[in-house]
Amino acid sequence: MEAGEDTSRVTISSSWAGASEDLLYQCRPRPADLRYAEAPPDQGSKEDDQPQRRIRLDEVKEHGPDSESPWVVRGQSVYDITDWVAGHPGGEVILRAAGGSVEPYWKIFSIHQKQEVYDILEQYRIGCVDERDLVDGQVPADSIIDPFIDDPRRDKKLVVLSARPCNAETPGDELRGFITPNRLFYVRNHMWVPTIEEEQYRLTIELDDGEEKTYTLMDLREKFPSVTITSTMQCSGNRRKHMTEKCGSTNGLQWSVGAIGNATWTGVRLRDVLVDAGFPIDAPPADAKHAQFTGLEAYGASVPLSKAIDAHGDVLLAYEMNGLGIPRDHGFPLRVIVPGHVAARSVKWLQKITISDEESLSQWQRRDYKSFGPNEGSKPDWSQARSIQEMPVTSAITSITTAPLAPKPKPQASSEEKKDSDFVVVEGYAYSGGGREIIRVDISKDDGKTWDQAELVQAENRGSKVWCWKQWRYQIPAAEFRGCVLAVKATDEAYNTQPETHDSTYNVRGNLATAWHRVKV
Amino acid sequence: MEAGEDTSRVTISSSWAGASEDLLYQCRPRPADLRYAEAPPDQGSKEDDQPQRRIRLDEVKEHGPDSESPWVVRGQSVYDITDWVAGHPGGEVILRAAGGSVEPYWKIFSIHQKQEVYDILEQYRIGCVDERDLVDGQVPADSIIDPFIDDPRRDKKLVVLSARPCNAETPGDELRGFITPNRLFYVRNHMWVPTIEEEQYRLTIELDDGEEKTYTLMDLREKFPSVTITSTMQCSGNRRKHMTEKCGSTNGLQWSVGAIGNATWTGVRLRDVLVDAGFPIDAPPADAKHAQFTGLEAYGASVPLSKAIDAHGDVLLAYEMNGLGIPRDHGFPLRVIVPGHVAARSVKWLQKITISDEESLSQWQRRDYKSFGPNEGSKPDWSQARSIQEMPVTSAITSITTAPLAPKPKPQASSEEKKDSDFVVVEGYAYSGGGREIIRVDISKDDGKTWDQAELVQAENRGSKVWCWKQWRYQIPAAEFRGCVLAVKATDEAYNTQPETHDSTYNVRGNLATAWHRVKV
Repeated sequence: MEAGEDTSRVTISSSWAGASEDLLYQCRPRPADLRYAEAPPDQGSKEDDQPQRRIRLDEVKEHGPDSESPWVVRGQSVYDITDWVAGHPGGEVILRAAGGSVEPYWKIFSIHQKQEVYDILEQYRIGCVDERDLVDGQVPADSIIDPFIDDPRRDKKLVVLSARPCNAETPGDELRGFITPNRLFYVRNHMWVPTIEEEQYRLTIELDDGEEKTYTLMDLREKFPSVTITSTMQCSGNRRKHMTEKCGSTNGLQWSVGAIGNATWTGVRLRDVLVDAGFPIDAPPADAKHAQFTGLEAYGASVPLSKAIDAHGDVLLAYEMNGLGIPRDHGFPLRVIVPGHVAARSVKWLQKITISDEESLSQWQRRDYKSFGPNEGSKPDWSQARSIQEMPVTSAITSITTAPLAPKPKPQASSEEKKDSDFVVVEGYAYSGGGREIIRVDISKDDGKTWDQAELVQAENRGSKVWCWKQWRYQIPAAEFRGCVLAVKATDEAYNTQPETHDSTYNVRGNLATAWHRVKV
Repeated sequence: MEAGEDTSRVTISSSWAGASEDLLYQCRPRPADLRYAEAPPDQGSKEDDQPQRRIRLDEVKEHGPDSESPWVVRGQSVYDITDWVAGHPGGEVILRAAGGSVEPYWKIFSIHQKQEVYDILEQYRIGCVDERDLVDGQVPADSIIDPFIDDPRRDKKLVVLSARPCNAETPGDELRGFITPNRLFYVRNHMWVPTIEEEQYRLTIELDDGEEKTYTLMDLREKFPSVTITSTMQCSGNRRKHMTEKCGSTNGLQWSVGAIGNATWTGVRLRDVLVDAGFPIDAPPADAKHAQFTGLEAYGASVPLSKAIDAHGDVLLAYEMNGLGIPRDHGFPLRVIVPGHVAARSVKWLQKITISDEESLSQWQRRDYKSFGPNEGSKPDWSQARSIQEMPVTSAITSITTAPLAPKPKPQASSEEKKDSDFVVVEGYAYSGGGREIIRVDISKDDGKTWDQAELVQAENRGSKVWCWKQWRYQIPAAEFRGCVLAVKATDEAYNTQPETHDSTYNVRGNLATAWHRVKV
């Protein structure tokens, strides 16, 4: 299906696309008397053997997110979760379901689909849905609130991999500019897009000693200097499709070359805000090791504190993308930008920053965004693998055209005069993490037997390091083009380069598919 | 030949081993009237057609380095170079030859072997060697001062690749400890080892505005806090031999796996000294971009200023190596340590630091320590390639033994009880530059078809980042060992990994031979 269409049907993509198995990783401290382990033993369904309070769906709706006594529906049962909210491991995101069915959310947060979770909910049962509101004995689908109903409309040029949550990549042809336009920037959402008014927005900073300080957007804009950097964002699953095609199944969205984009980001330095919040950045306490970020929709991730406070790390709390207010899909009103790192750490709709002695407890920190040896299979030891932070060097071919290149033909093409149309133009990008600039792009017409250098396109980089990609192009005489197997590989300023094939970096998550990009003509 | 033997014969290795072709790169400002371009036209040898002053070699000797009128001999001619020293592009290193023949030095600095240099020298001719001192019409070899005569004696276990200058690697078996002992640490000298007394030693710092400040060793020790880090040093040519064996000829010393070592380094932070010298490290001038380092023997190199002043960059002026005064071969009395970068930037026998808007003009900065595409051949465009600074990820097998491993057998080896002698133990190192820790080492017994993970040996790292290698080991049941083709590759914390073969990173310099290390059993 195409983007921009049909935002009302309740269809939810595979668990890897959104939040998944293990919400326990996202635990917050919770009242001791509400621990999962202390849930009562399974008492079976109470629907058949207890007197039922019959509740109309209209009454359930009144117990929505803003109610003092939020209710949810599961199956035909109604639950008053008022006393559970404080203990819910996922925090207040549970209120998103209040006034209706929890089931669309449990499809996203699939960890809920097990007996011990059912048991906890069962403690809060207050009755069942009045049979007058049932259709064929079920709560009708049209009464279930679509969590994605408020998602923004998207440009139809985006290639949609999953609609709910929205995951959509930029087509290769649209990646040829140094700056990727906002409307065509790839969308990687783990859940719905939160809706918030700028005036209501608050950012909370919790320091390692538990002290909290809260900022409005105006506070941030007025108290701190505004900084603009150019930074590429790339999903760890970019080019996963290539790995799958060569090596077999991988768990995750099958991105081609477009889960990447480059933008200018304007905001304030996280380090400046931390200083204002009272954090001693010049002499951080020994137990302050990570900066955890939580989004309004419950997504969470963290980066090492050293990156968060590095004077040359350029970690921003950004309110503008390419000179405009950050679009809703990209984190309105505030997104943390961690340049040089995997985009999964640049948390959107940022609501809280926590300085901690440990990484974010979210599954996205502890599981999903990691990689493994080719032999580690489908049950890797997640706890032993390092969270992906700085990205390795990669490159891709994004377009092959016969459109003439206006400027100087490359010397290696030919010394004779040739018409532009006698050439095929191959274009692409190369990128490395950690601020390491791309210094060379090698291209082969014979699958890597021989090489030449592509022309690197110069562009203005802003920031303490080179946080952005390098675009490249290469002309091939049309007569030599037929039958080519193109291969491209990049070298960064630390002279790191890409693996030749996906075989040696294959991992079940399909993360970091950085092998040479090959295209058979 | 073995190290530690015979330090008197005058034999000098190939130009790549020492200083080479292009000393013009090492120009200092010099009087306009002494430029090479203004040298008189070739007037041919004057020996036969002009009256000769006959000079005894004993008289030449009196005009040595400390003389007010230094003389040198070339062929049978004697030259008074007093007026040339200030204009000499290589600086006062020329005085090293005073009192004797320049020829051993011109074999090292081979750029001198061309007509325009001969012409310059010819201007300073004052006579010829008295025939009573000639043997068969030549100045006898035993009267030529060996530039390497003061080089230290070395441990016989070192594997000598060139004796003059000394280049010698650590045997694989001696690389098994986390710390490499000083006496076995690989030696990579571009010239002779300078001789200096600690009391005479001075370090000069020249800022971008030309201001200079000079420090004694005592000044450095007393004025600044002492810092100790653990840092691996690796030559860019480490494993060059592997590239040559697979891909054909490369220019340079044919190092195996031992042009690497790990030590603790104690000294003062360069950034602290720069502050003391008056450099504004918090707001460096826009034209202060590089920190150039010059050694007492004329070697020079530079690093980006951002590294030199980075609060977490740990660039030291080190006076201790593994808790002892730095050995002469490794830079006594002071060596700059640039952790995470190629060892070529950690200049030994440091005599001067210059803050500049450009890289060091030395050939070692502008030429030798760079890398190229496999297609760029023997005449690459040196000016277009990036100087090697941070090192890419690499790994190597250093030893294969049947010696029993004391601790727990690895679970993958077997669940049965086996005697230790039933296992072969493979050991090695893995290292990445820029402070990026090694997070995984994959090992294959079938040349990369299937993989397993080696055990990483834990060790104490000191410093702001992980500047040191990771040692690893792996047990293979003896029965499976026969016929194995071992392959090893490492992954660093940015998930960069190594190329599969040397073919795609082949370069005529044989630098950065980081492909998987393969060993056929």
